[in-house]
Amino acid sequence: MLGLFNRTGMRFMGTKQSFHKSDLTFQERPNLKPKPAADHQYTFGGLSTDYMLEINYDVHNGGWQRPLIKANEPFELDPANATLHYSIECFEGLKAYITHDDRTMLFRPDKNFERMNSSHRQLGFPEFNPKEMTECLKELIKIEKEWIPRRPMHSLYVRPTSICMDDRLSLSKVEKMKTFIILSPVGPYYPRGFVPVKLYCDTNTVRAWPQGFGDKKIGGNYGPTLRTSRMGNLKFGTDQVLWLLHDWVTEAGTMNFFVFWKNEEGEDELITPPLDGTILPGVTRDSILTLTKELRQFKVSTRPFKIQELMKACTEKRVYEAFGAGTAAIVSPVQSFVYDNVTYEIPVDKEKGAGKLTQRILQMMLDLQDGKTNRPEWQFYV
Amino acid sequence: MLGLFNRTGMRFMGTKQSFHKSDLTFQERPNLKPKPAADHQYTFGGLSTDYMLEINYDVHNGGWQRPLIKANEPFELDPANATLHYSIECFEGLKAYITHDDRTMLFRPDKNFERMNSSHRQLGFPEFNPKEMTECLKELIKIEKEWIPRRPMHSLYVRPTSICMDDRLSLSKVEKMKTFIILSPVGPYYPRGFVPVKLYCDTNTVRAWPQGFGDKKIGGNYGPTLRTSRMGNLKFGTDQVLWLLHDWVTEAGTMNFFVFWKNEEGEDELITPPLDGTILPGVTRDSILTLTKELRQFKVSTRPFKIQELMKACTEKRVYEAFGAGTAAIVSPVQSFVYDNVTYEIPVDKEKGAGKLTQRILQMMLDLQDGKTNRPEWQFYV
Repeated sequence: MLGLFNRTGMRFMGTKQSFHKSDLTFQERPNLKPKPAADHQYTFGGLSTDYMLEINYDVHNGGWQRPLIKANEPFELDPANATLHYSIECFEGLKAYITHDDRTMLFRPDKNFERMNSSHRQLGFPEFNPKEMTECLKELIKIEKEWIPRRPMHSLYVRPTSICMDDRLSLSKVEKMKTFIILSPVGPYYPRGFVPVKLYCDTNTVRAWPQGFGDKKIGGNYGPTLRTSRMGNLKFGTDQVLWLLHDWVTEAGTMNFFVFWKNEEGEDELITPPLDGTILPGVTRDSILTLTKELRQFKVSTRPFKIQELMKACTEKRVYEAFGAGTAAIVSPVQSFVYDNVTYEIPVDKEKGAGKLTQRILQMMLDLQDGKTNRPEWQFYV
Repeated sequence: MLGLFNRTGMRFMGTKQSFHKSDLTFQERPNLKPKPAADHQYTFGGLSTDYMLEINYDVHNGGWQRPLIKANEPFELDPANATLHYSIECFEGLKAYITHDDRTMLFRPDKNFERMNSSHRQLGFPEFNPKEMTECLKELIKIEKEWIPRRPMHSLYVRPTSICMDDRLSLSKVEKMKTFIILSPVGPYYPRGFVPVKLYCDTNTVRAWPQGFGDKKIGGNYGPTLRTSRMGNLKFGTDQVLWLLHDWVTEAGTMNFFVFWKNEEGEDELITPPLDGTILPGVTRDSILTLTKELRQFKVSTRPFKIQELMKACTEKRVYEAFGAGTAAIVSPVQSFVYDNVTYEIPVDKEKGAGKLTQRILQMMLDLQDGKTNRPEWQFYV
C-alpha cells in the first residue's frame, strides 16, 4: 500500500497530480441571463453569473479530470451523498475587480488556493497546483467580465468549493470529489457607510481548539457556530460572536479580529491573535498586517491576548478601535462586546461609523484593489 | 424580535412546532426497483430502497410542511446551497429488524430522534416532536417492509438526515431546511465472523473539545477526521483512530470505546469515557451499559481514563478485551492500538475474532433486535 502514496500520503501516484489549464474546455450555454441594471442594488451572494468552473476527480478513473467551464446550474446529488452527511467539504472566498484603468484583477488568489490545498489535505481530498487553478479561474473571469459592476467598491465575489461526490452511508476515504467555482457580483458591504457591529462572548462554547482544525476553511467550522450567534442575538441583540478559547480571544464571527489600543506598556499597538492552529490564516488579515507594519507608525503584534486584557483596556479607555477583517467586508468596525452580561463599548467615530485606522486600512485595500497602488505580487491581472 | 422566540430561542412561534404524522402523504412512484436475490451479499449502504420520507421546513411559509413519502431520488441542489459550504447538516443511524416471530421492529428510535433534536439546536434548525417522527418512520417502514432481508443478522439501516436548503454565500440563520430518511438493506457487519480492528493514536490531532460540539451527530465531526485515519492507515496499517484529548481516551473511529480489564484496584471492570461533551451519546453505548450493569458480574464504569492507564494495563496483561460500539457493527472488537510508534496488543479469541464479553454483548443485542428477549421500552413494533 505504502508505495502508492507520496510522503504526505495525500496524492495518488499513477493518477494526475493536478488538473491543468491547458486541458480546459468550454461548454457554451444556449441562453445568457439578463445582466442587472446599472443602478442595481446588489445583496451579497444574491445573484450568480452564467458560468461556473467545474473539475471532477475520480481515483478509479485517472484522478483529476479536465477542467470545464459550463452553465452555473443545480447539481443532482443523491440523498446518500457523503458531503450531506459527513461534511467532506471546504470553500474559499476572494474577489475580482475592475481597476480604475479598466483592467481586471484578482487579489492574491495564490493565497486562497494554497489554503484550499491545506483544507483538501484535512479532508483527504487530492491536492492541485494552485497556479493551474488560478489560470483556470482567469479564463472564467474573462468570460464573465461583463458581470463585474463598473462602479466604485463593487466587485465579483469568487467562491471556490470542493465537495465529496461519493454516495455512501459510512465514513471512508474519498474516491470521487468535485471542485467548482461560482461567481456573484457584489456591491459595497456597507452601502450607506460603516455599520459597526456588536459582539457576544459566550464563555460556554468554543469554536476551535489546539490540534483541531480551526485554521482550515472547511464547512465543519461554520454550521456548528450558528447556535451561539443566535443565542447572542436573542439575548443581547449582538450581530456576531467574539469567539474565546477559555479566556483567549480568537476570532469575531467568520472574521479575524484586530484591536488598536494603547497597551499596558503605554505603546500604541495593533494586535491580532497569532496563527496557532485555532485561527483562520485570513488573506485580508495577512494584507493588513503587512500594510500596517510598513506604515511604521505604531507597533503591530500577532500575539495571544485575553478578553480580560481587552475589558481592562476598555475600562481604562485605552482602546482606540477594533475591527473584524475578511474578504467580504474587508474591515468591519466593532462598537461593543458583551461579556458576562456586561457591555463594553469600543470607540467609533459617530459620523463615519468606524475609527480612523479602520477607515485608513479600508482605503489602502481599496486603492490596491482598484489598481491605484501597485503591489505586483498581490495583483493578478487577468 | 425577542417576542417571536421561546425561551430556548430555537422554535419559531406562529409556525408549526412540529410536523405531524396525521399530515403524512404518500406519493407513489411509477416503477419499483427489483428486490435483491435471496442470497444477495449486501455491502453496507450499497443499496437504497424505493421510497424515502421527506419533510421540508420554510420559516416564511408556516414552518414545518407536510411529511411526504416519495421516491428516493436525487435532489437538485444549487451550487450555492449552504449545506455544501457551511456544513449545516446532521444525521442519525438506526435499524429496522424482522423478528424471529415475523414482526417488524425499530430499536430505540426515540433516542435517535431526541439526539437529532439536540443536533438541530446546534445548527439553528427547528426542533420536532420525536414521537411524530417515529410514527412517520413507521409508515415508511411499513411500505418498505419487503426490503428487510429475512435472514439472520440482516436488517434495514435507517438514515435520517437534515440539511439546510438556503442558497446563500454568507453564513446566517437557517430559513429553509429539509429532513429526510433513506433506507438501505444491510447484512451482518462481519459476514465471515469478527474481524478485530487496529487503532491508531495520533498525539497531534484532537477530534472534539470541552465546550465544543463533539457530542452532536453533525457532519462537522466527521469529514475533518479523514486526514488522521488515513495517516494511521498509511503509517501503521490501522483501521480506525483511537481519539485522544491530550491523554484522555475518547472515541474509536466513529464508535464509542469500551475496555474490559482488571483495573488498578484489582476489580474486573467494563469502562467507557463519560458523556462530558466530547463523547457522542451512543444508543448502542447506552444499551450496552444498561445490559452489562444488569448482569451484576463485574463493575461497569463511565469515568475518564488515560491512554497511559491502558498502555500500563496492556503491559501488565490486565486487559481482557476492548471494543468499539455503534449502530452499524453493534460491537467491533479491537486487537491492538499504536501509540508513539509502539503497538499494544489486546487479547482476542483467535478463532472467534473477539473476546468472550464482546461476543456475549453482541448476542444480547441480537436477541433483543430479533425479539427473542423482551424489553418493551426499547422495542418499537411497527
